[in-house]
Amino acid sequence: MVRVVAPSGPFDPDLFERGVAVLRDRFGLHPRMRADIRAAHGYLAGEDVRRVQEWQEASTDHEARAIWAARGGYGAMRLLHRIELPRLLHPPKWVIGYSDITALHAALNGAGLVTCHGPVVTQLPRVTPEVLDHLEAMLFGEPRPAAGPGPAPGAGVAGTGVIRAGSASGALFGGSLTLLAHLCGTPYLPRLRGAVLFIEDVGEKPYRLDRYLTQLRLSGALDGVRGVCVGHITDCDDAGVSGLATVRELVRALGVPAVDGMPVGHEDRNLPLPLGSIVTLVAPGPGEAGPPRLLFDQGARA
Amino acid sequence: MVRVVAPSGPFDPDLFERGVAVLRDRFGLHPRMRADIRAAHGYLAGEDVRRVQEWQEASTDHEARAIWAARGGYGAMRLLHRIELPRLLHPPKWVIGYSDITALHAALNGAGLVTCHGPVVTQLPRVTPEVLDHLEAMLFGEPRPAAGPGPAPGAGVAGTGVIRAGSASGALFGGSLTLLAHLCGTPYLPRLRGAVLFIEDVGEKPYRLDRYLTQLRLSGALDGVRGVCVGHITDCDDAGVSGLATVRELVRALGVPAVDGMPVGHEDRNLPLPLGSIVTLVAPGPGEAGPPRLLFDQGARA
Repeated sequence: MVRVVAPSGPFDPDLFERGVAVLRDRFGLHPRMRADIRAAHGYLAGEDVRRVQEWQEASTDHEARAIWAARGGYGAMRLLHRIELPRLLHPPKWVIGYSDITALHAALNGAGLVTCHGPVVTQLPRVTPEVLDHLEAMLFGEPRPAAGPGPAPGAGVAGTGVIRAGSASGALFGGSLTLLAHLCGTPYLPRLRGAVLFIEDVGEKPYRLDRYLTQLRLSGALDGVRGVCVGHITDCDDAGVSGLATVRELVRALGVPAVDGMPVGHEDRNLPLPLGSIVTLVAPGPGEAGPPRLLFDQGARA
Repeated sequence: MVRVVAPSGPFDPDLFERGVAVLRDRFGLHPRMRADIRAAHGYLAGEDVRRVQEWQEASTDHEARAIWAARGGYGAMRLLHRIELPRLLHPPKWVIGYSDITALHAALNGAGLVTCHGPVVTQLPRVTPEVLDHLEAMLFGEPRPAAGPGPAPGAGVAGTGVIRAGSASGALFGGSLTLLAHLCGTPYLPRLRGAVLFIEDVGEKPYRLDRYLTQLRLSGALDGVRGVCVGHITDCDDAGVSGLATVRELVRALGVPAVDGMPVGHEDRNLPLPLGSIVTLVAPGPGEAGPPRLLFDQGARA
């Protein structure tokens, strides 16, 4: 059984039904949700009190193996100070989503939990078959880590570009660059010192991407980060300036191993990542074999 | 003599020339600027090194009575860790601008200096005559505070709406809400405890305004703020949701005296504010006389 929740924005009901059908037909899951999950209050999926109650019910549901977010948008960060994140995830279960769900991942990862950066329910109808295969292996595959959520041993994802060659190991944190910048200064941004950072974004002009990375840098949040993976930077070009090039330049300035072209984010190939678990980033230099890649280390937990 | 600088984005050269003409013809100033002020590097008015050098030259210019920003946009916050803000403002001089210039105001105000939140040079051709009168009184009027920049005694501005009735005194800090959120977690956001906060914004959807205020609140930056003034919330409505209503709701939740409709921000009536100086916010309750207003206290400095 899986709980479906809407902690962020309202969603298209048809897309949602098609996504729920994927949960049922492809994964054999029994989705459970509140009757008011389709609520809309401006840009929010209902008032804060509804979304808080929904999260609390889902996170304390003893039958649920996972909590799957219906959609991103905006709104999850409004809940962070109203819910007791780690305490309520008993028994341990996967939390799956991305984009605005980065706020929940960050708070959960910061509390020591492993979560799944992966497609929201409304994205499931359009992801590639490979994404569903990776999700099945990560969420429901064997062998399972004994202690709860964690990646299957030996899995990983490959990127396409090297920003700076080298390799680095550490806990994997991150998600939407926009959201990470907007957690600066709050108690919910995980400590990135010693970590590998993943970022992706959609629909943000290059100067905004610059502002996000500049804020993270000025705040000291990037001090001691060991490596950076850049996923999809989708629909971020403006007035002849490339969003990806802007991100690459600012990431390169951090002076640590970094790759881009990771198939993770707001495109149909949105492969799942085990946030909070230990990973190894490999950014091959000239003459070194293999693609730029992120390896999930034997299901180890951060 | 006044120094004109471009620490943020590139600008329209015709608008700029017309703005420089206002400095000359209306205020009798002799604008001085670098030959490369019209540089453009993507969304920046030239590379960081150019903008840093320009700022340093301007701030140490012993003949300059003021440093006037050519335009906002984005880029000032990229300079903050590269320049020694307070040390370089000798002798004391006004710094004038708004929008992206909020980053410089914040850093200077945080270091104890009074600055002028007012039109950038490229906005000068279209501001109302009243704005130019207020600027003249604040920047060059008599009597002058002995210690350097500060408002003329007894001045102030009136707003139109009361968000929460009451009154509050404290140092005035703020500017662009977007910029303030993006200074969260950095050393450059002034300590708002005991202060009166001013915010305005342009072209940000309601959910983004929400995110900015939510970040400021979650970070603790709004703890102990004594009052809030809301200026122009321009072009921020989306999908039937009002940007101003969104701001009002989140500001009201702070539980302190607050007004809106302050004629300050991205519209032609952009009256100057003395950031960093002591002000009194008056938000009249039912039956109380006078408009919602912000009074500049006798030129006192924070």
